[in-house]
Amino acid sequence: MRLIVIGGDAAGMSAAAQARRRRGPDDLEILAFEMGRFVSYSACGIPYWIGGLVDGPDALIARTPAAFRTAGIEVRTRHEVTGIDLDARTVTVRDRDAGRTRHEGFDHLVYATGASPVRPSWAATDAGGVFGVQTLEDGSALREWLDREKPADAVVIGGGYIGVEMAEAMINRGLRVTLVERAAQPMGTVDEDMGALVAASIRNLGIELRTGVTVEGLETANGRIAAVATDAGAIPAGVVVIGLGVRPNTALAEAAGLPLGTTGGIRTDLRQRAADGVWAAGDCTEVHHRISRRAVHVPLGTHANKQGRVAGINIGGGYATFPGVIGTAVTKLCDLEVARTGLSSREAAQAGFATVTATVESTNRAGYFPGAVPMTVKVIAERDTGVLLGAQIVGRTEAAKRIDAFAVAVWNGMTVSEMTGLDLGYAPPYAPVWDPILIAARKAEEVVTRPVIR
Amino acid sequence: MRLIVIGGDAAGMSAAAQARRRRGPDDLEILAFEMGRFVSYSACGIPYWIGGLVDGPDALIARTPAAFRTAGIEVRTRHEVTGIDLDARTVTVRDRDAGRTRHEGFDHLVYATGASPVRPSWAATDAGGVFGVQTLEDGSALREWLDREKPADAVVIGGGYIGVEMAEAMINRGLRVTLVERAAQPMGTVDEDMGALVAASIRNLGIELRTGVTVEGLETANGRIAAVATDAGAIPAGVVVIGLGVRPNTALAEAAGLPLGTTGGIRTDLRQRAADGVWAAGDCTEVHHRISRRAVHVPLGTHANKQGRVAGINIGGGYATFPGVIGTAVTKLCDLEVARTGLSSREAAQAGFATVTATVESTNRAGYFPGAVPMTVKVIAERDTGVLLGAQIVGRTEAAKRIDAFAVAVWNGMTVSEMTGLDLGYAPPYAPVWDPILIAARKAEEVVTRPVIR
Repeated sequence: MRLIVIGGDAAGMSAAAQARRRRGPDDLEILAFEMGRFVSYSACGIPYWIGGLVDGPDALIARTPAAFRTAGIEVRTRHEVTGIDLDARTVTVRDRDAGRTRHEGFDHLVYATGASPVRPSWAATDAGGVFGVQTLEDGSALREWLDREKPADAVVIGGGYIGVEMAEAMINRGLRVTLVERAAQPMGTVDEDMGALVAASIRNLGIELRTGVTVEGLETANGRIAAVATDAGAIPAGVVVIGLGVRPNTALAEAAGLPLGTTGGIRTDLRQRAADGVWAAGDCTEVHHRISRRAVHVPLGTHANKQGRVAGINIGGGYATFPGVIGTAVTKLCDLEVARTGLSSREAAQAGFATVTATVESTNRAGYFPGAVPMTVKVIAERDTGVLLGAQIVGRTEAAKRIDAFAVAVWNGMTVSEMTGLDLGYAPPYAPVWDPILIAARKAEEVVTRPVIR
Repeated sequence: MRLIVIGGDAAGMSAAAQARRRRGPDDLEILAFEMGRFVSYSACGIPYWIGGLVDGPDALIARTPAAFRTAGIEVRTRHEVTGIDLDARTVTVRDRDAGRTRHEGFDHLVYATGASPVRPSWAATDAGGVFGVQTLEDGSALREWLDREKPADAVVIGGGYIGVEMAEAMINRGLRVTLVERAAQPMGTVDEDMGALVAASIRNLGIELRTGVTVEGLETANGRIAAVATDAGAIPAGVVVIGLGVRPNTALAEAAGLPLGTTGGIRTDLRQRAADGVWAAGDCTEVHHRISRRAVHVPLGTHANKQGRVAGINIGGGYATFPGVIGTAVTKLCDLEVARTGLSSREAAQAGFATVTATVESTNRAGYFPGAVPMTVKVIAERDTGVLLGAQIVGRTEAAKRIDAFAVAVWNGMTVSEMTGLDLGYAPPYAPVWDPILIAARKAEEVVTRPVIR
């Protein structure tokens, strides 16, 4: 039996590792093809590497091809799969360095091609100095440009997680940074009032934040980026980072006849199966959102790892399912911490929920304890039932990971009333005697139980 | 209508505040008697005040008698209730300063007398230099002794939360500190293997930790403490802090005929009612443990506040219940963080559960991220069902409050298998891509699903 893995990052290599754990080399041959030079690395760490906070690229690599080989998993980097024949059970593979193409047969196939940065038509350019940050190669190229060209002005397009993290990286490197966001607030994954708190912090860092501004084109000079053209004028740029989200890489899958979902990602069953003997996992797939009960595309390493593990267990003869996501995400912008789980107000409305919200200001520690700083907690609950639909946190320290308690509550369908009784950890260095989570739940409970005139 | 509150700290004053919120002064007169000089303070902050980390006593006071008065709640400090007549609906109150005693009638009574430090018979002494730390007065007296007598050697008796926190306080003040614990490991609320990690950290701080040592008496000289006599020899002491836990203050309640439970605490119903129109809350009561399904005595400010709030809502004409506890607790010893929730291995066995455990070593942040330090996570699950019964964490930073995610999982009766799919917050500054909680759940799942030969 032979397993072929297309894509050597989190999802693909997790699948390979789990399959190997359950089936020895005599039982299952495992062969992974990766288009790039690196496998099994933390793409999430790239902004911190660019900013000089962590070393790279080696430190970001969890496991090298050599280490996989020792574990009985053959990895071929710089090998691009260019076709899949589901009937013949073969893939076509091009060795990018040797320029050779050959066919390889499989019994099981893991499709884990990831996602690629969205590049609007205006971003099509051969000019130097325009970057996405998805792969270690992207990171290397951007660092090389910064080191060699020493640009003074950076423009980051897109105020989501990647955009905000990249803006911080550029500030840390001493550039003047403009962050351009089309919406009224950055960080559109949280509600606008919470986004406004993030906006204030971004500006405090010395980043020029331009919201409500639409990019219209890139201006180049002598084959290099010179400025970003927007509906509010041109912004000079010696380097541009585009952080407008990613789209699942599905071209190969589509050509092979694998099913795509409504989000554009590959559709799988709960066991990560896309077709008989064909498994898909990671950023190229769509996942089930447990609260909206819709398919969503949430390209995060944590999901990719879990999905890959599930596929690998199933390939290995075990039984595992991926239970879906609830939209938990955390990010850090210097000392600002932002977190969310469940549905935002807008997502809840789109999913058909009538909601109430409650927002509280509290502190991370007992007010009298050294290091106590403010944090804002927002709760989104179903109006007539009080079921917790989502929560958001903006704070300075010891704030973001508090979202996990909310996440487990969302996962279990708790109501805000039930939550007021939760037995959470209390000691003065860790929380006020009423934890911010409990205060938020109490305030939300009051709104839920208030009579509603319809 | 008149509400009398006995005991002016967390439980009593929370009840008063909630009752007042729902019923105005014309509808309900509220009168609170407090034996000591202070009301509504954070007893949990006392060790940090002793250690000089926070100011006191004022900073530890959440609300003064004057502030309560403004809110329509009359508070009499230095007033000791010496008797309750449930038939006559009166209490006997002694003004400790004026020396007068009088009777006061009530319609509702809140009994919130708290708990007192356990003092074994060997601890009965009039000698100076022996302290418990339960009230702000205790804290003041201890600070005064330290400032005036400048003892060189402190002995802290009892290696639980208070003992450990007080040992740290004494070290911070520059004393030589010996911490004496009868059991094999300190912090008996966590399993012995986790306690051993705590022991190592205590010793690293320069605290002389003596485990397996039983105190037999106090040696005094010239009316002052001189040494602590143990079964392993005498330990010189210029100051002794006794941290052997607390017992509910129930003498008054018992005399009045209020029901006591098996733990010695006052027994109430879910609404915190001990008798018709009589409510009890806080450290003087016992509570329901949701996992062992037994009554337990867990004297923590967080429960006292919640119970007091429940009593106050009910007195105010609302409806509220206290859902019980699951044994969550967190503590900090310099940079060591210790947390637990649910049942420990021993508690689980006592409650009749057959258990399996899994312990993992991970880090608080992605391994490559600056500030990544080790943390140890232990999971205790029911052997045949995989239901999460408890969890414990020992780490250096960003560790203890992770217990809240476990706490919510325990609260909801999740299995460790279900937990492996949880959507927890991931970003390199906050967690490895597999959060330590997920790694622990995965390891526990493997143990649970392993066939058991009986």
